[in-house]
Amino acid sequence: MKQVLLTGDRPSGKLHLGHYVGSLLSRVEMQRQYESYIMVTDVQALTDNFEKPDIVQKNIYEVALDYLAVGIDPNIATIYIQSQIPEVTELTIYFMNLVSLSRLERNPTVKAELAQKGMTESIPVGFLCYPINQAADITIFSAEVIPVGEDQQPMIEQTNEIVRRFNRIYNVDLLKECRAHIGVNGRLPGIDGKSKASKSLGNAIFLSDDTATIKSKVREMFTDPNHLKVSDKGRVEGNVVFTYLDAFHKDKGEVSALKEHYQRGGLGDVPIKELLFQDLETLLAPIREKRANFSTEFVRSVLKEGTLRARAKAQETMRKIRAAMHLDHFV
Amino acid sequence: MKQVLLTGDRPSGKLHLGHYVGSLLSRVEMQRQYESYIMVTDVQALTDNFEKPDIVQKNIYEVALDYLAVGIDPNIATIYIQSQIPEVTELTIYFMNLVSLSRLERNPTVKAELAQKGMTESIPVGFLCYPINQAADITIFSAEVIPVGEDQQPMIEQTNEIVRRFNRIYNVDLLKECRAHIGVNGRLPGIDGKSKASKSLGNAIFLSDDTATIKSKVREMFTDPNHLKVSDKGRVEGNVVFTYLDAFHKDKGEVSALKEHYQRGGLGDVPIKELLFQDLETLLAPIREKRANFSTEFVRSVLKEGTLRARAKAQETMRKIRAAMHLDHFV
Repeated sequence: MKQVLLTGDRPSGKLHLGHYVGSLLSRVEMQRQYESYIMVTDVQALTDNFEKPDIVQKNIYEVALDYLAVGIDPNIATIYIQSQIPEVTELTIYFMNLVSLSRLERNPTVKAELAQKGMTESIPVGFLCYPINQAADITIFSAEVIPVGEDQQPMIEQTNEIVRRFNRIYNVDLLKECRAHIGVNGRLPGIDGKSKASKSLGNAIFLSDDTATIKSKVREMFTDPNHLKVSDKGRVEGNVVFTYLDAFHKDKGEVSALKEHYQRGGLGDVPIKELLFQDLETLLAPIREKRANFSTEFVRSVLKEGTLRARAKAQETMRKIRAAMHLDHFV
Repeated sequence: MKQVLLTGDRPSGKLHLGHYVGSLLSRVEMQRQYESYIMVTDVQALTDNFEKPDIVQKNIYEVALDYLAVGIDPNIATIYIQSQIPEVTELTIYFMNLVSLSRLERNPTVKAELAQKGMTESIPVGFLCYPINQAADITIFSAEVIPVGEDQQPMIEQTNEIVRRFNRIYNVDLLKECRAHIGVNGRLPGIDGKSKASKSLGNAIFLSDDTATIKSKVREMFTDPNHLKVSDKGRVEGNVVFTYLDAFHKDKGEVSALKEHYQRGGLGDVPIKELLFQDLETLLAPIREKRANFSTEFVRSVLKEGTLRARAKAQETMRKIRAAMHLDHFV
């Protein structure tokens, strides 16, 4: 029997190249190897977008469309909407008894995200608790393989702590421990060179961007601010164009040669940006085309069928959990 | 249309005279006036009894039996098991986005209970969040009248804050504000004279106690430690026997006369304890008898029918809530 893989994205906006490099590509590669559950995490998105439910709703379809366009096959992987599996909220409530407030407050991922969102003063309880919600997402599908970035590793540790505590307290061997599958490609910086490409920072190239937008975003890309004349020596470290060429240009030897040329002077930003633009256009044009060809009805049917399949599995696990917790009345 | 009343008890033990005076008696009186929902709060009980699910399960039946024995009519009031309405957990998760951690930590009821349970160091998240869970219990039934002790008033305030915030953010007039119905009878102290009668403090007389147990508990009751000889002047304040006589002896004039006699000296503890024992036996004998006559099957069917009725109502509200939050996919 295949192991279960679980992953997903917040529908707070469309997906971008950071998602593509960091997770979507390997997800497509792994979808045959594992029984894959890919969730559109609207419940999680609402923890910091609760005032914008219409935006979350709209982006569920955009994210699903991105999934299909990059090659996730709904006949192989189960794509579902998180909020439509209410059993996860039930399990979250019971998991909340197994985690202390101080443990939650120590979570480095949550701490970093709170700081990034400026929520240090008034932390919504839902946001603070989302690692517990995530643990419920993972365990309700008996998922063992969780593709994450390195910054998400603490989430996996939190999940496994809950799993061990639950199994010990209720004297069962029911919940499975999981492991992080850290992507080899790592993080893609934003076009401004800052940290990572992110919807909220407005520095990302979206999978659905049109040709003109890609061109303009590549033109704006951060290179080397001291590389004023073509003849100047240029820096390659922190130069976003080269980081992107490393990620997307097939001919690695050519990238090495260009880097060398840039460093010794004589290579301007224009030709390397043109090369990158061509690479991105080659990558994104077919994705954009596929995106345009999927009907709303098709995306909707994919989400509906995936959700029904996922819910049946979640209900099965939840029945066992209720029995373990002596909550199986009237069955 | 009748207003909805919601109330309940944690199934962490059988119910006792404190419950009878503080809530059960008025619940029986109010069951015709309001559409009453009476929940056995096993989800809440698990927040501080998660390691003892078997005890929680067993006490669900004991509490329901106590309800029936004191005269709650299952044909009028809806008695249900909290955990069997998973829609409440779903709503709780969404309410968690509307409450900040600092607001929760300020809740005086939670603070007092944490101190009482010695949970000041390691607070389980589930326990900290139970006011949010309670707000979901109340609002999912559109309950407007919540019979509580004065110490529970902050729970009602928390609920109404959530209600106003939800209605404002999602631009609806869907959730109803509620009000506390503070009982006139107040709190009954424990037989040891300490604070209140409580299961966990082991100082309560249970509705199901047999004659010998009642006799022995009355004999142990705290009176006036300086009232050594019958001829001594005695104190009435803080004297548990007189507090109980105030609550249970029908002839208030007789109680006044006894207090006066006790204060001026010449009245021993034995006759007033005998009088109280007779009062309690008169009250509890028929309850005990009823308790013995309800079959397990009957209690089970009461809980099942009540739970089905409650769930249908909760599902109806939850459908509207999902629509307001744009979470109504596939309907």
